[in-house]
Amino acid sequence: MSERYEIRVAGSGGQGVILAAVIIGQAAALMEENLNSVQTQAYGPEARGGASKSEVVIARGEIDYPKAASPNLQVILTEKACDEYSGDVTPGGTLILDDFFPSEDLGVDAEIFRLPIVKTARDTIGREIVTNMVALGTAARVLELQGLMKPDSIRKTIIASVPKGTEELNCKAFDEGYRLMKEKK
Amino acid sequence: MSERYEIRVAGSGGQGVILAAVIIGQAAALMEENLNSVQTQAYGPEARGGASKSEVVIARGEIDYPKAASPNLQVILTEKACDEYSGDVTPGGTLILDDFFPSEDLGVDAEIFRLPIVKTARDTIGREIVTNMVALGTAARVLELQGLMKPDSIRKTIIASVPKGTEELNCKAFDEGYRLMKEKK
Repeated sequence: MSERYEIRVAGSGGQGVILAAVIIGQAAALMEENLNSVQTQAYGPEARGGASKSEVVIARGEIDYPKAASPNLQVILTEKACDEYSGDVTPGGTLILDDFFPSEDLGVDAEIFRLPIVKTARDTIGREIVTNMVALGTAARVLELQGLMKPDSIRKTIIASVPKGTEELNCKAFDEGYRLMKEKK
Repeated sequence: MSERYEIRVAGSGGQGVILAAVIIGQAAALMEENLNSVQTQAYGPEARGGASKSEVVIARGEIDYPKAASPNLQVILTEKACDEYSGDVTPGGTLILDDFFPSEDLGVDAEIFRLPIVKTARDTIGREIVTNMVALGTAARVLELQGLMKPDSIRKTIIASVPKGTEELNCKAFDEGYRLMKEKK
């Protein structure tokens, strides 16, 4: 991996983007991954009723600057968040967009994937509340392809993080997200 | 308030220090508080089996540096976290320590309060899992005294953040923590 890898999950309030980023950060710190990570969220005027984002920076070495100024990977769940954040993607990076909103001609230099993340949570799993776990699954596939993290490390962290009794539901959503992305790449 | 106010919650894994800091960060961004906040956690070798910490920086204006280099307020739940982090407190700042572990002669220039945070969660509430909400209650009293945030903003954020059905339990723990600190100051 290069020196640092920046990940941003963005959407609207209530979509659980914080937990998604927290889980990536914790998974990176597991023994078997042995990476460093810093996870950040900012709240301000723009967060009030607007787009919300949560970020993780992963590195083998020390992390000096904890924000994702130019994310290598973004998973974006709403049109508003797409308008606000898609342009920040690092040149040649990866952009995963929910396919529920129109997102033509973003004019960014990135590999773009449009995936039915919200729809999968809503229809396949039947619980929109697990949208963040589907999103996490799509990210897990990209992190695996990058040689950064094994999906199983993220899965284990999900099991340790979600409320007792909801592990199966959350893992199922994660697996579906992983599958969605794997079908593309 | 001064330009920025830094808060750190530290303890061991599983004590929920992340959620405590996330809730402070979100509460600060509520309409009625109208503050900016950035919330951070770092994971690395030291987090594996060691002390875990979560930080929030609050400001009226823009926040340039998101880490709490010298926290104005620290709530520390374990001896290991105390060894590691208590020395960082800003001169004249506030240190809330769980009274379960010995913590004599820290040699820091701070107002120190020893409070039965874990014990309150365990015995008064009967659920050690709400230790973080008791800790949050103690912090809420300090933030109120600083004129930074109303306890009710934090309470509302708790209700919006915890799993459905656990709101009452979590709020009760928060109220107990607030009371613990209010008895002291």
